[in-house]
Amino acid sequence: MSTNNNIKTYGFGVVAQGFYNYLETNKEEERLHTVIIKNPTKIRKGINATIETTNSNTARDRDMRVIVELISSADEAYGIVVENLEIGKKVVSANKKLIAENLETIVKAEKENDGIFLYEGAVCGSIPIIRVLNDLYANEQVKEIKGIFNGSSNYILSQLFSKEVSYDEALFQAQKLGFAEADPSSDVGGYDALYKLIIVTAHAFGKIIRPQEVLNIGIEALAKSDIEFAKKYNLKIKLVAKASLKEDQLTLTVLPTLVANNNDLYNIENEYNGVVIDSENIGEQFYKGKGAGSLPTGAVVYSDLKAIDNNYSYSYKKLEAENYKLTDEEKIAVIVSVKESIDVEILNVENLYSIDKRRKRFLATITIEELKRNKHNIQKQGISILAIEDEFLIEELINASLKEEVLTI
Amino acid sequence: MSTNNNIKTYGFGVVAQGFYNYLETNKEEERLHTVIIKNPTKIRKGINATIETTNSNTARDRDMRVIVELISSADEAYGIVVENLEIGKKVVSANKKLIAENLETIVKAEKENDGIFLYEGAVCGSIPIIRVLNDLYANEQVKEIKGIFNGSSNYILSQLFSKEVSYDEALFQAQKLGFAEADPSSDVGGYDALYKLIIVTAHAFGKIIRPQEVLNIGIEALAKSDIEFAKKYNLKIKLVAKASLKEDQLTLTVLPTLVANNNDLYNIENEYNGVVIDSENIGEQFYKGKGAGSLPTGAVVYSDLKAIDNNYSYSYKKLEAENYKLTDEEKIAVIVSVKESIDVEILNVENLYSIDKRRKRFLATITIEELKRNKHNIQKQGISILAIEDEFLIEELINASLKEEVLTI
Repeated sequence: MSTNNNIKTYGFGVVAQGFYNYLETNKEEERLHTVIIKNPTKIRKGINATIETTNSNTARDRDMRVIVELISSADEAYGIVVENLEIGKKVVSANKKLIAENLETIVKAEKENDGIFLYEGAVCGSIPIIRVLNDLYANEQVKEIKGIFNGSSNYILSQLFSKEVSYDEALFQAQKLGFAEADPSSDVGGYDALYKLIIVTAHAFGKIIRPQEVLNIGIEALAKSDIEFAKKYNLKIKLVAKASLKEDQLTLTVLPTLVANNNDLYNIENEYNGVVIDSENIGEQFYKGKGAGSLPTGAVVYSDLKAIDNNYSYSYKKLEAENYKLTDEEKIAVIVSVKESIDVEILNVENLYSIDKRRKRFLATITIEELKRNKHNIQKQGISILAIEDEFLIEELINASLKEEVLTI
Repeated sequence: MSTNNNIKTYGFGVVAQGFYNYLETNKEEERLHTVIIKNPTKIRKGINATIETTNSNTARDRDMRVIVELISSADEAYGIVVENLEIGKKVVSANKKLIAENLETIVKAEKENDGIFLYEGAVCGSIPIIRVLNDLYANEQVKEIKGIFNGSSNYILSQLFSKEVSYDEALFQAQKLGFAEADPSSDVGGYDALYKLIIVTAHAFGKIIRPQEVLNIGIEALAKSDIEFAKKYNLKIKLVAKASLKEDQLTLTVLPTLVANNNDLYNIENEYNGVVIDSENIGEQFYKGKGAGSLPTGAVVYSDLKAIDNNYSYSYKKLEAENYKLTDEEKIAVIVSVKESIDVEILNVENLYSIDKRRKRFLATITIEELKRNKHNIQKQGISILAIEDEFLIEELINASLKEEVLTI
């Protein structure tokens, strides 16, 4: 087989093995020329490719056609991806952190050198959301894109709602099943969802936003009483990542969110992900599929390879056309739960209603800016924040609350 | 602009106008060279294209690059599509009947003459399901694909469940809103859904099946008591089209179906469509979006044009590889409602349970073959058939029934 057809993969973890499974099924395993790994004892037997361990000073792979980057370190991946794009290679990656933090540089390297860079596996596992945004939404005014983008935290939330387990037990179970990393902080802290939100925002709105500019609150602070509270009102809590446009202002958040049972996100359980897109002419669309796992993610990595074989690349049409600004001025409705009721005074909230007798749970409105400024305090004091999307829920919670006077503090 | 870039459309109805809207928004309206219509007084003012009325003996359009066929007659569309593919043109269509009835001939004409034929607008309006099946599922073993493929009948069912309206009122309302044709028989009779099922089956399973080989029962026979029955058990009735594979046998049906609230199809209301795909490695995926309407369908027709500009075509990889057979031997669980209880004897059913006191509603199992053979009698006697998918529903209905003995007739 000519080197013109050759593939080099970096890493041979869960996703790479799923990808390799598709190469085998489609009798293309001979295209896999070289596998670069850290630990040579970990490689699966029976692979008919050159196995090399990481050592190269340069990642430039002149004799390869396609580079498939599937390692976990975003820093190491950066060199592999950018250096190969700079010599016009076709590169596939599933590294959301790498892409979210460096999309501008990467796209520049891709376009200037006629390379191709595809990364369907980086967002929502098996859901082909990047392809859909690039192909169907390139010419469509998106108003909002939101979803459940992290399978690990969604698995934990599903367990907390369906079983009488503690947060720690649910996390342990998620790790045992391979849905959560040994260090789960990126998943449960909402960082993984944030990276994915940055990537879909670039495609949906044509705006590249730096991850550190966006408010992300994870699920670590959720207490048993939060789950009970949600259940009492027939709601679920989901970690929702959302980007929405008002005039030319974009609001981005990753927040634990109360979801009612008529919401498309309500029935997304365990390792599944879901995306809702609302746009000017198409209206609402909803996509649901497995957000993690070797074969589901391997499937989209393989479909990226097939797309490269057909010379497909992302057009990034909106990156040149749109000129939106990120804003933190939006006010959102939240449930704030505090350990001591005095703690609520840390936050500059409006329209405060007490929701329980002991005055430790409040319904309020607050700006994104205020939440960002206080993120450290919120974490330190173990304050839990639950966003509320639907107007009708706010009404319902006010009515069902103890009908106390609006508090002034 | 060079003729190399020219577009000729046939028809200027609802979908074509949505398509034209996208041409305008993207400053491509000059590419529209000629519009062929039946009635010249119907054309929208301000279109800067040659307007011609249907008269040509030959549809071959040598000086055009892309032919966009959006007329309603499948017979007339056949000539336009096939003759242009035979001279290597790039053709877009949204004519499900044309495609379902002639896919083999069309694909042959496309492949032999290096033409391109795309038809995302033919199935599920705005949902890019053909593209997803072609791109993501080409190398994936699909086990089942099912969905709500017809917006008109789904709109009617939504009205019947949410409001105290009669079938005729709901139909009239659907027609008023443009969700149903003046002659609604193709929609409410399940033919429109059947054509779409034939098309997704070709992509999902690589098997082209003739529409007349497949059992389709529409929603015309549903009575108020059927709606009440479903509501009593907290269920909805949806017109579900389904293709499933067992070993190498395919079963295809279009049937009114009882759906429980944990089913993805339960929350698809009004003109929305939804598709569930279950496959070997990816697991379950679900897609939901508007199934009809000028702009939602125009959006995917325009995205077909963009795909043609990028030289994209469907690969039909499975058409060559798979060799499945259609079977009618599968037994399915159904609720049969009859006007006179003696009528149930028309059908050769098994495991018969009486579900109501007057013995006019029965739970039973029956083969697809038996339903097909008796389709005429079922319609003549006003018998309503509701398929039941979920095992747990069957159990529940048996338990909740009057616990009569299993009837033997």
